[in-house]
Amino acid sequence: MEASARIEICLEKAIEAASSKPCPPLLAKAVHYSVFPGGARVRPQLCVSVATACGGTESVTAEHAGAAIELLHCASLVHDDLPCFDDADIRRGRKSVHALYGEPLAVLVGDALIVESFNTLRRGCENDQSKLGPLVSCIAGAVGMPGGIVAGQAWESESKIDVHQYHRAKTGSLFVGAVAAGAIAVGEDPQPWCPLGQFVGEAYQLADDLFDAAGSSDENGKPVLQDVNNDRPNAVARYGIDGTMKRLKETVGNAVDAIPDCEGGEELRSLILAQATRLVPSKLAKSAA
Amino acid sequence: MEASARIEICLEKAIEAASSKPCPPLLAKAVHYSVFPGGARVRPQLCVSVATACGGTESVTAEHAGAAIELLHCASLVHDDLPCFDDADIRRGRKSVHALYGEPLAVLVGDALIVESFNTLRRGCENDQSKLGPLVSCIAGAVGMPGGIVAGQAWESESKIDVHQYHRAKTGSLFVGAVAAGAIAVGEDPQPWCPLGQFVGEAYQLADDLFDAAGSSDENGKPVLQDVNNDRPNAVARYGIDGTMKRLKETVGNAVDAIPDCEGGEELRSLILAQATRLVPSKLAKSAA
Repeated sequence: MEASARIEICLEKAIEAASSKPCPPLLAKAVHYSVFPGGARVRPQLCVSVATACGGTESVTAEHAGAAIELLHCASLVHDDLPCFDDADIRRGRKSVHALYGEPLAVLVGDALIVESFNTLRRGCENDQSKLGPLVSCIAGAVGMPGGIVAGQAWESESKIDVHQYHRAKTGSLFVGAVAAGAIAVGEDPQPWCPLGQFVGEAYQLADDLFDAAGSSDENGKPVLQDVNNDRPNAVARYGIDGTMKRLKETVGNAVDAIPDCEGGEELRSLILAQATRLVPSKLAKSAA
Repeated sequence: MEASARIEICLEKAIEAASSKPCPPLLAKAVHYSVFPGGARVRPQLCVSVATACGGTESVTAEHAGAAIELLHCASLVHDDLPCFDDADIRRGRKSVHALYGEPLAVLVGDALIVESFNTLRRGCENDQSKLGPLVSCIAGAVGMPGGIVAGQAWESESKIDVHQYHRAKTGSLFVGAVAAGAIAVGEDPQPWCPLGQFVGEAYQLADDLFDAAGSSDENGKPVLQDVNNDRPNAVARYGIDGTMKRLKETVGNAVDAIPDCEGGEELRSLILAQATRLVPSKLAKSAA
Protein backbone atom coordinates (compact mmCIF):
# COMPACT_ATOMS: atom_id res chain seq x y z
CA MET A 1 0.00 0.00 0.00
CA GLU A 2 1.23 3.50 -0.85
CA ALA A 3 2.49 5.63 2.04
CA SER A 4 -0.22 8.22 1.36
CA ALA A 5 -2.96 5.60 1.80
CA ARG A 6 -1.40 4.32 5.01
CA ILE A 7 -1.18 7.85 6.43
CA GLU A 8 -4.84 8.42 5.53
CA ILE A 9 -5.82 5.22 7.39
CA CYS A 10 -3.95 6.42 10.52
CA LEU A 11 -5.80 9.73 10.35
CA GLU A 12 -9.16 8.02 9.86
CA LYS A 13 -8.58 5.70 12.82
CA ALA A 14 -7.54 8.59 15.05
CA ILE A 15 -10.62 10.66 14.19
CA GLU A 16 -12.92 7.66 14.42
CA ALA A 17 -11.70 6.76 17.92
CA ALA A 18 -11.95 10.38 19.04
CA SER A 19 -15.48 10.71 17.65
CA SER A 20 -16.93 7.59 19.24
CA LYS A 21 -19.60 7.73 21.96
CA PRO A 22 -20.08 9.85 24.10
CA CYS A 23 -18.60 12.59 21.86
CA PRO A 24 -20.94 15.56 21.24
CA PRO A 25 -22.07 15.12 17.60
CA LEU A 26 -21.21 18.62 16.35
CA LEU A 27 -17.68 18.45 17.72
CA ALA A 28 -17.20 15.10 15.97
CA LYS A 29 -18.48 16.58 12.69
CA ALA A 30 -16.33 19.69 12.95
CA VAL A 31 -13.18 17.70 13.76
CA HIS A 32 -13.78 15.42 10.77
CA TYR A 33 -14.36 18.45 8.54
CA SER A 34 -11.06 19.99 9.66
CA VAL A 35 -9.03 16.91 8.68
CA PHE A 36 -10.87 15.47 5.63
CA PRO A 37 -10.43 15.88 2.74
CA GLY A 38 -6.91 17.10 3.46
CA GLY A 39 -4.47 19.20 1.54
CA ALA A 40 -1.34 17.64 0.04
CA ARG A 41 -0.42 15.96 3.38
CA VAL A 42 3.11 17.20 2.69
CA ARG A 43 4.43 16.93 6.25
CA PRO A 44 3.40 13.32 6.95
CA GLN A 45 4.65 12.29 3.51
CA LEU A 46 8.00 13.86 4.31
CA CYS A 47 8.08 12.08 7.67
CA VAL A 48 7.40 8.67 6.12
CA SER A 49 9.78 9.35 3.20
CA VAL A 50 12.64 10.04 5.62
CA ALA A 51 11.86 6.83 7.52
CA THR A 52 11.86 4.92 4.21
CA ALA A 53 15.10 6.57 3.07
CA CYS A 54 16.67 5.35 6.34
CA GLY A 55 15.69 1.81 5.37
CA GLY A 56 12.56 1.56 7.53
CA THR A 57 10.01 0.34 4.99
CA GLU A 58 6.36 0.62 6.02
CA SER A 59 7.18 1.78 9.54
CA VAL A 60 3.96 1.86 11.55
CA THR A 61 5.60 4.28 13.98
CA ALA A 62 6.57 6.69 11.17
CA GLU A 63 3.04 6.59 9.72
CA HIS A 64 1.53 7.43 13.09
CA ALA A 65 4.12 10.15 13.70
CA GLY A 66 3.27 11.59 10.29
CA ALA A 67 -0.45 11.47 11.07
CA ALA A 68 0.20 13.14 14.45
CA ILE A 69 2.06 15.95 12.66
CA GLU A 70 -0.77 16.36 10.16
CA LEU A 71 -3.31 16.64 13.02
CA LEU A 72 -1.20 19.44 14.51
CA HIS A 73 -0.99 21.13 11.12
CA CYS A 74 -4.80 20.97 10.83
CA ALA A 75 -5.13 22.33 14.38
CA SER A 76 -2.88 25.27 13.53
CA LEU A 77 -4.94 26.08 10.42
CA VAL A 78 -8.23 26.02 12.37
CA HIS A 79 -6.87 28.32 15.09
CA ASP A 80 -5.04 30.60 12.60
CA ASP A 81 -8.32 31.18 10.74
CA LEU A 82 -10.11 32.38 13.92
CA PRO A 83 -11.47 35.93 13.95
CA CYS A 84 -8.79 37.06 16.42
CA PHE A 85 -6.02 35.98 14.01
CA ASP A 86 -6.56 35.92 10.23
CA ASP A 87 -10.37 36.02 10.38
CA ALA A 88 -10.37 33.82 7.27
CA ASP A 89 -13.73 32.46 6.10
CA ILE A 90 -12.26 30.26 3.36
CA ARG A 91 -9.76 27.42 3.69
CA ARG A 92 -8.94 24.68 1.16
CA GLY A 93 -11.57 26.16 -1.15
CA ARG A 94 -14.48 25.93 1.28
CA LYS A 95 -15.72 27.47 4.51
CA SER A 96 -13.25 27.56 7.37
CA VAL A 97 -14.22 25.66 10.54
CA HIS A 98 -15.29 28.74 12.51
CA ALA A 99 -17.24 30.08 9.53
CA LEU A 100 -19.22 26.83 9.33
CA TYR A 101 -19.41 25.63 12.95
CA GLY A 102 -18.91 28.84 14.93
CA GLU A 103 -16.02 30.15 16.95
CA PRO A 104 -16.48 28.05 20.14
CA LEU A 105 -16.31 24.76 18.23
CA ALA A 106 -13.35 26.02 16.17
CA VAL A 107 -11.36 26.69 19.36
CA LEU A 108 -12.32 23.25 20.69
CA VAL A 109 -11.49 21.48 17.40
CA GLY A 110 -7.96 22.87 17.56
CA ASP A 111 -7.59 21.84 21.21
CA ALA A 112 -8.93 18.35 20.54
CA LEU A 113 -6.62 17.85 17.56
CA ILE A 114 -3.56 18.76 19.63
CA VAL A 115 -4.56 16.21 22.27
CA GLU A 116 -5.36 13.56 19.65
CA SER A 117 -2.00 14.15 18.04
CA PHE A 118 -0.13 12.94 21.13
CA ASN A 119 -2.54 10.05 21.46
CA THR A 120 -1.73 9.10 17.86
CA LEU A 121 2.00 9.13 18.62
CA ARG A 122 1.26 6.77 21.50
CA ARG A 123 -0.66 4.40 19.23
CA GLY A 124 2.29 4.32 16.83
CA CYS A 125 4.63 3.22 19.63
CA GLU A 126 2.52 0.42 21.08
CA ASN A 127 5.07 -2.14 19.91
CA ASP A 128 8.12 -0.02 20.62
CA GLN A 129 7.58 2.08 23.73
CA SER A 130 11.17 3.34 23.85
CA LYS A 131 10.44 5.66 20.91
CA LEU A 132 7.47 7.44 22.50
CA GLY A 133 9.53 9.74 24.74
CA PRO A 134 11.82 11.00 21.95
CA LEU A 135 8.82 11.45 19.62
CA VAL A 136 6.81 13.40 22.21
CA SER A 137 9.84 15.62 22.82
CA CYS A 138 10.38 16.14 19.09
CA ILE A 139 6.75 16.96 18.31
CA ALA A 140 6.24 19.13 21.41
CA GLY A 141 9.28 21.15 20.35
CA ALA A 142 7.94 21.52 16.82
CA VAL A 143 4.52 22.75 17.86
CA GLY A 144 4.85 24.37 21.29
CA MET A 145 7.11 26.77 23.10
CA PRO A 146 9.79 28.05 22.90
CA GLY A 147 10.26 27.71 19.12
CA GLY A 148 7.36 25.73 17.62
CA ILE A 149 4.31 26.83 15.62
CA VAL A 150 2.51 28.32 18.63
CA ALA A 151 5.55 30.46 19.45
CA GLY A 152 5.81 31.46 15.79
CA GLN A 153 2.21 32.63 15.74
CA ALA A 154 2.81 34.53 18.99
CA TRP A 155 5.48 36.70 17.32
CA GLU A 156 2.54 38.46 15.63
CA SER A 157 1.58 39.82 19.07
CA GLU A 158 4.99 41.38 19.69
CA SER A 159 5.60 45.05 18.90
CA LYS A 160 9.01 44.16 17.43
CA ILE A 161 8.95 41.01 15.29
CA ASP A 162 11.98 38.78 14.75
CA VAL A 163 11.16 37.86 11.13
CA HIS A 164 13.71 35.05 10.86
CA GLN A 165 12.55 33.46 14.11
CA TYR A 166 8.92 34.06 13.14
CA HIS A 167 9.18 32.03 9.91
CA ARG A 168 11.48 29.46 11.44
CA ALA A 169 8.97 28.78 14.21
CA LYS A 170 5.67 29.31 12.39
CA THR A 171 6.43 27.28 9.25
CA GLY A 172 9.86 25.68 9.53
CA SER A 173 9.48 23.96 12.89
CA LEU A 174 6.86 21.45 11.82
CA PHE A 175 8.92 20.45 8.77
CA VAL A 176 11.97 19.95 10.99
CA GLY A 177 9.73 17.97 13.34
CA ALA A 178 8.49 15.85 10.42
CA VAL A 179 11.95 14.80 9.21
CA ALA A 180 13.25 14.33 12.76
CA ALA A 181 10.24 12.18 13.69
CA GLY A 182 10.77 10.07 10.56
CA ALA A 183 14.34 9.36 11.64
CA ILE A 184 13.41 8.69 15.29
CA ALA A 185 10.61 6.33 14.21
CA VAL A 186 13.14 3.96 12.63
CA GLY A 187 15.78 4.32 15.34
CA GLU A 188 18.07 6.81 13.59
CA ASP A 189 19.67 9.92 15.08
CA PRO A 190 17.39 12.82 14.02
CA GLN A 191 20.08 15.53 14.24
CA PRO A 192 21.71 15.08 10.78
CA TRP A 193 18.24 15.25 9.21
CA CYS A 194 17.22 18.61 10.67
CA PRO A 195 18.84 20.84 7.97
CA LEU A 196 16.73 19.06 5.32
CA GLY A 197 13.61 19.96 7.31
CA GLN A 198 14.75 23.55 7.67
CA PHE A 199 15.34 24.00 3.93
CA VAL A 200 12.05 22.33 2.98
CA GLY A 201 10.30 24.58 5.49
CA GLU A 202 11.94 27.66 4.00
CA ALA A 203 10.97 26.55 0.50
CA TYR A 204 7.35 26.16 1.62
CA GLN A 205 7.41 29.60 3.22
CA LEU A 206 8.72 31.18 0.01
CA ALA A 207 6.14 29.26 -2.01
CA ASP A 208 3.39 30.37 0.35
CA ASP A 209 4.51 33.99 -0.02
CA LEU A 210 4.45 33.59 -3.83
CA PHE A 211 0.94 32.13 -3.79
CA ASP A 212 -0.25 34.88 -1.48
CA ALA A 213 1.21 37.62 -3.69
CA ALA A 214 0.83 36.13 -7.18
CA GLY A 215 -1.50 33.15 -7.01
CA SER A 216 -5.23 33.04 -7.60
CA SER A 217 -7.58 32.32 -4.73
CA ASP A 218 -8.98 29.34 -6.69
CA GLU A 219 -5.56 27.75 -6.93
CA ASN A 220 -4.74 28.70 -3.37
CA GLY A 221 -7.93 27.41 -1.75
CA LYS A 222 -7.91 30.56 0.40
CA PRO A 223 -7.95 34.32 -0.22
CA VAL A 224 -4.75 35.85 -1.62
CA LEU A 225 -2.99 39.04 -0.44
CA GLN A 226 -3.57 38.13 3.20
CA ASP A 227 -0.01 39.08 4.16
CA VAL A 228 -0.38 42.57 2.70
CA ASN A 229 -3.80 42.97 4.28
CA ASN A 230 -2.56 41.76 7.68
CA ASP A 231 0.75 43.65 7.42
CA ARG A 232 2.77 40.49 7.75
CA PRO A 233 6.28 39.89 6.39
CA ASN A 234 6.26 38.41 2.86
CA ALA A 235 9.33 37.59 0.76
CA VAL A 236 7.73 38.95 -2.42
CA ALA A 237 7.39 42.41 -0.85
CA ARG A 238 11.11 42.30 -0.07
CA TYR A 239 12.68 40.52 -3.04
CA GLY A 240 10.04 40.86 -5.78
CA ILE A 241 8.57 37.88 -7.66
CA ASP A 242 11.72 37.07 -9.65
CA GLY A 243 13.94 37.40 -6.60
CA THR A 244 11.65 35.14 -4.57
CA MET A 245 11.51 32.56 -7.39
CA LYS A 246 15.32 32.54 -7.50
CA ARG A 247 15.51 32.05 -3.74
CA LEU A 248 12.97 29.23 -3.92
CA LYS A 249 15.04 27.39 -6.53
CA GLU A 250 18.20 27.79 -4.45
CA THR A 251 16.44 26.63 -1.29
CA VAL A 252 15.11 23.46 -2.97
CA GLY A 253 18.69 22.84 -4.15
CA ASN A 254 19.96 23.28 -0.59
CA ALA A 255 17.29 20.88 0.64
CA VAL A 256 18.29 18.00 -1.63
CA ASP A 257 21.97 18.66 -0.90
CA ALA A 258 21.20 18.39 2.82
CA ILE A 259 19.93 14.79 2.59
CA PRO A 260 22.33 12.74 4.74
CA ASP A 261 23.99 9.64 3.28
CA CYS A 262 21.44 6.86 3.51
CA GLU A 263 20.05 3.83 1.68
CA GLY A 264 17.22 5.62 -0.05
CA GLY A 265 18.85 9.04 -0.52
CA GLU A 266 18.49 9.12 -4.31
CA GLU A 267 14.79 8.30 -4.19
CA LEU A 268 14.17 10.95 -1.55
CA ARG A 269 16.05 13.48 -3.70
CA SER A 270 13.79 12.75 -6.71
CA LEU A 271 10.70 12.97 -4.53
CA ILE A 272 11.61 16.40 -3.17
CA LEU A 273 12.46 17.75 -6.63
CA ALA A 274 9.15 16.42 -7.97
CA GLN A 275 7.23 18.04 -5.08
CA ALA A 276 9.04 21.31 -5.70
CA THR A 277 7.46 21.75 -9.14
CA ARG A 278 4.08 21.94 -7.35
CA LEU A 279 5.40 24.71 -5.14
CA VAL A 280 4.81 27.64 -7.45
CA PRO A 281 1.63 29.28 -8.74
CA SER A 282 0.82 27.93 -12.21
CA LYS A 283 1.32 31.27 -13.92
CA LEU A 284 4.91 31.35 -12.65
CA ALA A 285 5.62 27.66 -13.22
CA LYS A 286 7.15 28.21 -16.67
CA SER A 287 9.87 30.48 -15.38
CA ALA A 288 10.60 28.00 -12.60
CA ALA A 289 11.32 25.17 -15.03
CA MET B 1 9.60 18.18 50.99
CA GLU B 2 5.79 18.51 50.93
CA ALA B 3 3.97 17.22 47.86
CA SER B 4 2.60 20.69 47.14
CA ALA B 5 6.13 22.14 46.95
CA ARG B 6 7.32 19.34 44.68
CA ILE B 7 4.37 19.86 42.32
CA GLU B 8 5.14 23.60 42.22
CA ILE B 9 8.77 22.84 41.28
CA CYS B 10 7.60 20.61 38.40
CA LEU B 11 5.34 23.40 37.15
CA GLU B 12 8.12 26.00 37.44
CA LYS B 13 10.56 23.81 35.54
CA ALA B 14 8.04 23.15 32.78
CA ILE B 15 7.23 26.84 32.30
CA GLU B 16 10.90 27.84 32.54
CA ALA B 17 11.92 25.37 29.82
CA ALA B 18 9.03 26.44 27.61
CA SER B 19 9.85 30.14 28.06
CA SER B 20 13.56 29.90 27.25
CA LYS B 21 15.04 31.50 24.12
CA PRO B 22 13.81 31.96 21.40
CA CYS B 23 10.30 32.24 22.93
CA PRO B 24 8.46 35.50 22.13
CA PRO B 25 8.55 37.49 25.41
CA LEU B 26 4.82 38.25 25.68
CA LEU B 27 3.84 34.62 25.18
CA ALA B 28 6.28 33.63 27.93
CA LYS B 29 4.81 36.27 30.27
CA ALA B 30 1.22 35.29 29.51
CA VAL B 31 1.89 31.59 30.03
CA HIS B 32 3.56 32.28 33.37
CA TYR B 33 0.63 34.47 34.40
CA SER B 34 -1.84 31.71 33.56
CA VAL B 35 -0.12 29.16 35.84
CA PHE B 36 1.27 31.27 38.74
CA PRO B 37 0.14 31.92 41.38
CA GLY B 38 -2.18 28.97 41.08
CA GLY B 39 -5.43 28.04 42.72
CA ALA B 40 -5.63 25.21 45.21
CA ARG B 41 -3.82 22.79 42.83
CA VAL B 42 -6.47 20.27 43.82
CA ARG B 43 -6.03 17.91 40.86
CA PRO B 44 -2.25 17.42 41.11
CA GLN B 45 -2.55 17.02 44.90
CA LEU B 46 -5.13 14.30 44.34
CA CYS B 47 -2.87 12.59 41.79
CA VAL B 48 0.13 12.57 44.14
CA SER B 49 -2.05 11.56 47.13
CA VAL B 50 -3.30 8.49 45.26
CA ALA B 51 0.28 7.53 44.34
CA THR B 52 1.29 7.93 48.00
CA ALA B 53 -1.72 5.93 49.21
CA CYS B 54 -0.59 3.13 46.87
CA GLY B 55 2.76 3.15 48.66
CA GLY B 56 4.71 5.18 46.08
CA THR B 57 6.28 7.85 48.29
CA GLU B 58 7.71 10.90 46.50
CA SER B 59 7.08 9.46 43.05
CA VAL B 60 8.69 11.73 40.47
CA THR B 61 6.39 10.31 37.81
CA ALA B 62 3.27 11.12 39.88
CA GLU B 63 4.46 14.68 40.54
CA HIS B 64 5.03 15.26 36.84
CA ALA B 65 1.70 13.65 35.97
CA GLY B 66 0.04 15.94 38.53
CA ALA B 67 1.80 18.98 37.05
CA ALA B 68 0.74 17.90 33.55
CA ILE B 69 -2.88 17.72 34.72
CA GLU B 70 -2.64 21.17 36.33
CA LEU B 71 -1.28 22.64 33.07
CA LEU B 72 -4.31 21.21 31.27
CA HIS B 73 -6.61 22.63 33.94
CA CYS B 74 -4.99 26.07 33.47
CA ALA B 75 -5.34 25.72 29.67
CA SER B 76 -9.03 24.94 30.03
CA LEU B 77 -9.58 28.01 32.25
CA VAL B 78 -7.81 30.32 29.77
CA HIS B 79 -9.84 29.03 26.83
CA ASP B 80 -13.12 28.92 28.82
CA ASP B 81 -12.71 32.60 29.68
CA LEU B 82 -12.40 33.61 25.98
CA PRO B 83 -15.03 36.01 24.60
CA CYS B 84 -16.59 33.23 22.50
CA PHE B 85 -17.25 31.13 25.65
CA ASP B 86 -17.75 32.77 29.06
CA ASP B 87 -16.28 36.15 28.10
CA ALA B 88 -14.96 36.40 31.67
CA ASP B 89 -12.63 39.28 32.48
CA ILE B 90 -11.83 38.10 36.00
CA ARG B 91 -10.22 34.83 37.09
CA ARG B 92 -8.63 33.97 40.45
CA GLY B 93 -9.36 37.52 41.60
CA ARG B 94 -7.47 39.29 38.81
CA LYS B 95 -7.71 39.91 35.08
CA SER B 96 -8.20 36.86 32.90
CA VAL B 97 -5.46 36.12 30.36
CA HIS B 98 -7.37 37.47 27.36
CA ALA B 99 -8.40 40.59 29.30
CA LEU B 100 -4.74 41.35 30.07
CA TYR B 101 -2.85 39.99 27.05
CA GLY B 102 -5.51 40.01 24.33
CA GLU B 103 -7.42 37.23 22.64
CA PRO B 104 -4.71 35.99 20.23
CA LEU B 105 -2.23 35.33 23.05
CA ALA B 106 -4.95 33.73 25.18
CA VAL B 107 -5.71 31.20 22.42
CA LEU B 108 -1.98 30.50 22.05
CA VAL B 109 -1.40 30.20 25.81
CA GLY B 110 -4.03 27.45 25.97
CA ASP B 111 -2.51 25.66 22.98
CA ALA B 112 1.01 25.92 24.40
CA LEU B 113 -0.09 24.60 27.80
CA ILE B 114 -1.72 21.53 26.22
CA VAL B 115 1.52 20.76 24.36
CA GLU B 116 3.66 21.42 27.44
CA SER B 117 1.46 19.10 29.45
CA PHE B 118 2.42 16.08 27.33
CA ASN B 119 6.05 17.19 27.41
CA THR B 120 5.82 17.26 31.22
CA LEU B 121 4.45 13.70 31.26
CA ARG B 122 7.46 12.69 29.17
CA ARG B 123 9.89 14.32 31.61
CA GLY B 124 8.29 12.42 34.47
CA CYS B 125 8.89 9.10 32.68
CA GLU B 126 12.54 9.61 31.77
CA ASN B 127 13.56 6.86 34.17
CA ASP B 128 10.58 4.62 33.49
CA GLN B 129 9.57 4.83 29.85
CA SER B 130 7.04 2.01 30.09
CA LYS B 131 4.66 4.34 31.95
CA LEU B 132 4.58 7.07 29.32
CA GLY B 133 2.17 5.29 26.96
CA PRO B 134 -0.45 4.52 29.64
CA LEU B 135 -0.14 8.07 31.03
CA VAL B 136 -0.53 9.70 27.60
CA SER B 137 -3.60 7.54 27.00
CA CYS B 138 -5.07 8.38 30.42
CA ILE B 139 -4.50 12.13 30.13
CA ALA B 140 -5.58 12.35 26.48
CA GLY B 141 -8.83 10.63 27.48
CA ALA B 142 -9.35 13.04 30.36
CA VAL B 143 -8.87 16.17 28.32
CA GLY B 144 -9.72 15.36 24.69
CA MET B 145 -12.41 13.56 22.73
CA PRO B 146 -14.65 11.66 23.07
CA GLY B 147 -15.31 12.30 26.79
CA GLY B 148 -12.71 14.70 28.20
CA ILE B 149 -12.87 18.41 29.09
CA VAL B 150 -12.87 19.57 25.47
CA ALA B 151 -15.82 17.31 24.68
CA GLY B 152 -17.57 18.55 27.84
CA GLN B 153 -17.20 22.16 26.77
CA ALA B 154 -18.46 21.24 23.28
CA TRP B 155 -21.80 20.09 24.73
CA GLU B 156 -22.56 23.82 25.16
CA SER B 157 -22.66 24.07 21.33
CA GLU B 158 -25.30 21.34 20.99
CA SER B 159 -28.96 22.25 20.72
CA LYS B 160 -29.83 19.36 23.04
CA ILE B 161 -27.46 19.03 25.97
CA ASP B 162 -26.78 15.77 27.82
CA VAL B 163 -26.40 17.30 31.30
CA HIS B 164 -24.97 14.19 32.92
CA GLN B 165 -22.42 13.70 30.16
CA TYR B 166 -21.69 17.43 30.13
CA HIS B 167 -20.63 17.53 33.80
CA ARG B 168 -18.96 14.15 33.65
CA ALA B 169 -16.77 15.31 30.75
CA LYS B 170 -16.29 18.98 31.61
CA THR B 171 -15.43 18.62 35.30
CA GLY B 172 -15.33 14.94 36.25
CA SER B 173 -12.96 13.67 33.57
CA LEU B 174 -9.88 15.52 34.81
CA PHE B 175 -10.46 14.27 38.37
CA VAL B 176 -10.76 10.71 37.08
CA GLY B 177 -7.61 11.35 35.05
CA ALA B 178 -5.83 12.64 38.16
CA VAL B 179 -6.53 9.58 40.32
CA ALA B 180 -5.89 7.17 37.43
CA ALA B 181 -2.58 8.86 36.61
CA GLY B 182 -1.55 8.66 40.27
CA ALA B 183 -2.13 4.90 40.23
CA ILE B 184 -0.41 4.38 36.86
CA ALA B 185 2.60 6.43 38.01
CA VAL B 186 3.36 3.88 40.72
CA GLY B 187 2.56 0.80 38.67
CA GLU B 188 -0.95 0.13 39.98
CA ASP B 189 -4.05 -0.73 37.97
CA PRO B 190 -5.96 2.58 37.58
CA GLN B 191 -9.40 1.00 37.11
CA PRO B 192 -10.37 0.47 40.78
CA TRP B 193 -9.46 4.12 41.48
CA CYS B 194 -11.74 5.67 38.88
CA PRO B 195 -14.94 5.80 41.04
CA LEU B 196 -13.05 7.93 43.61
CA GLY B 197 -12.18 10.39 40.84
CA GLN B 198 -15.78 10.43 39.63
CA PHE B 199 -17.17 11.20 43.09
CA VAL B 200 -14.56 13.88 43.81
CA GLY B 201 -15.35 15.43 40.44
CA GLU B 202 -19.08 15.42 41.21
CA ALA B 203 -18.41 17.00 44.61
CA TYR B 204 -16.41 19.77 42.95
CA GLN B 205 -19.15 20.35 40.41
CA LEU B 206 -21.75 20.68 43.16
CA ALA B 207 -19.42 22.98 45.10
CA ASP B 208 -18.82 25.08 42.00
CA ASP B 209 -22.57 25.39 41.47
CA LEU B 210 -22.98 26.48 45.11
CA PHE B 211 -20.25 29.12 44.79
CA ASP B 212 -21.76 30.37 41.56
CA ALA B 213 -25.24 30.64 43.08
CA ALA B 214 -24.48 31.58 46.68
CA GLY B 215 -20.83 32.61 46.98
CA SER B 216 -19.38 36.10 46.79
CA SER B 217 -17.20 37.09 43.84
CA ASP B 218 -14.37 37.94 46.28
CA GLU B 219 -14.39 34.46 47.72
CA ASN B 220 -14.83 32.93 44.29
CA GLY B 221 -12.08 34.87 42.53
CA LYS B 222 -14.43 35.20 39.55
CA PRO B 223 -17.90 36.66 38.96
CA VAL B 224 -20.84 34.75 40.45
CA LEU B 225 -24.17 33.88 38.76
CA GLN B 226 -22.36 32.96 35.53
CA ASP B 227 -24.44 29.82 35.08
CA VAL B 228 -27.70 31.73 35.27
CA ASN B 229 -26.37 34.43 32.97
CA ASN B 230 -25.08 31.89 30.46
CA ASP B 231 -28.14 29.65 30.79
CA ARG B 232 -26.06 26.67 31.90
CA PRO B 233 -27.20 23.77 34.07
CA ASN B 234 -26.60 24.38 37.79
CA ALA B 235 -27.56 22.02 40.63
CA VAL B 236 -28.83 24.88 42.84
CA ALA B 237 -31.42 25.84 40.23
CA ARG B 238 -32.64 22.25 40.31
CA TYR B 239 -32.30 21.16 43.95
CA GLY B 240 -32.11 24.48 45.85
CA ILE B 241 -29.25 25.40 48.19
CA ASP B 242 -30.20 22.94 50.94
CA GLY B 243 -30.75 20.11 48.48
CA THR B 244 -27.40 20.79 46.82
CA MET B 245 -25.62 20.92 50.21
CA LYS B 246 -27.16 17.56 51.09
CA ARG B 247 -26.04 16.07 47.80
CA LEU B 248 -22.53 17.45 48.29
CA LYS B 249 -22.26 15.82 51.71
CA GLU B 250 -23.46 12.48 50.30
CA THR B 251 -21.06 12.69 47.37
CA VAL B 252 -18.05 13.35 49.61
CA GLY B 253 -19.16 10.31 51.64
CA ASN B 254 -19.35 8.23 48.48
CA ALA B 255 -15.87 9.44 47.52
CA VAL B 256 -14.18 8.30 50.71
CA ASP B 257 -16.09 5.01 50.59
CA ALA B 258 -14.75 4.47 47.06
CA ILE B 259 -11.09 4.47 48.12
CA PRO B 260 -9.78 1.00 47.28
CA ASP B 261 -7.97 -1.06 49.90
CA CYS B 262 -4.42 0.24 50.03
CA GLU B 263 -1.53 1.04 52.37
CA GLY B 264 -2.36 4.71 52.85
CA GLY B 265 -6.15 4.53 52.56
CA GLU B 266 -6.85 6.02 55.98
CA GLU B 267 -4.62 9.03 55.35
CA LEU B 268 -6.21 9.64 51.96
CA ARG B 269 -9.66 9.46 53.57
CA SER B 270 -8.72 12.15 56.13
CA LEU B 271 -7.23 14.33 53.40
CA ILE B 272 -10.37 14.21 51.26
CA LEU B 273 -12.63 14.96 54.22
CA ALA B 274 -10.40 17.91 55.20
CA GLN B 275 -10.46 19.26 51.63
CA ALA B 276 -14.25 18.90 51.58
CA THR B 277 -14.72 21.51 54.31
CA ARG B 278 -13.18 24.06 51.90
CA LEU B 279 -15.69 23.11 49.26
CA VAL B 280 -18.57 25.32 50.37
CA PRO B 281 -19.02 29.10 50.40
CA SER B 282 -18.19 30.44 53.88
CA LYS B 283 -21.74 31.62 54.56
CA LEU B 284 -22.97 28.05 54.07
CA ALA B 285 -20.09 26.36 55.89
CA LYS B 286 -21.92 26.24 59.24
CA SER B 287 -24.76 24.19 57.92
CA ALA B 288 -22.28 21.84 56.25
CA ALA B 289 -20.54 21.00 59.51
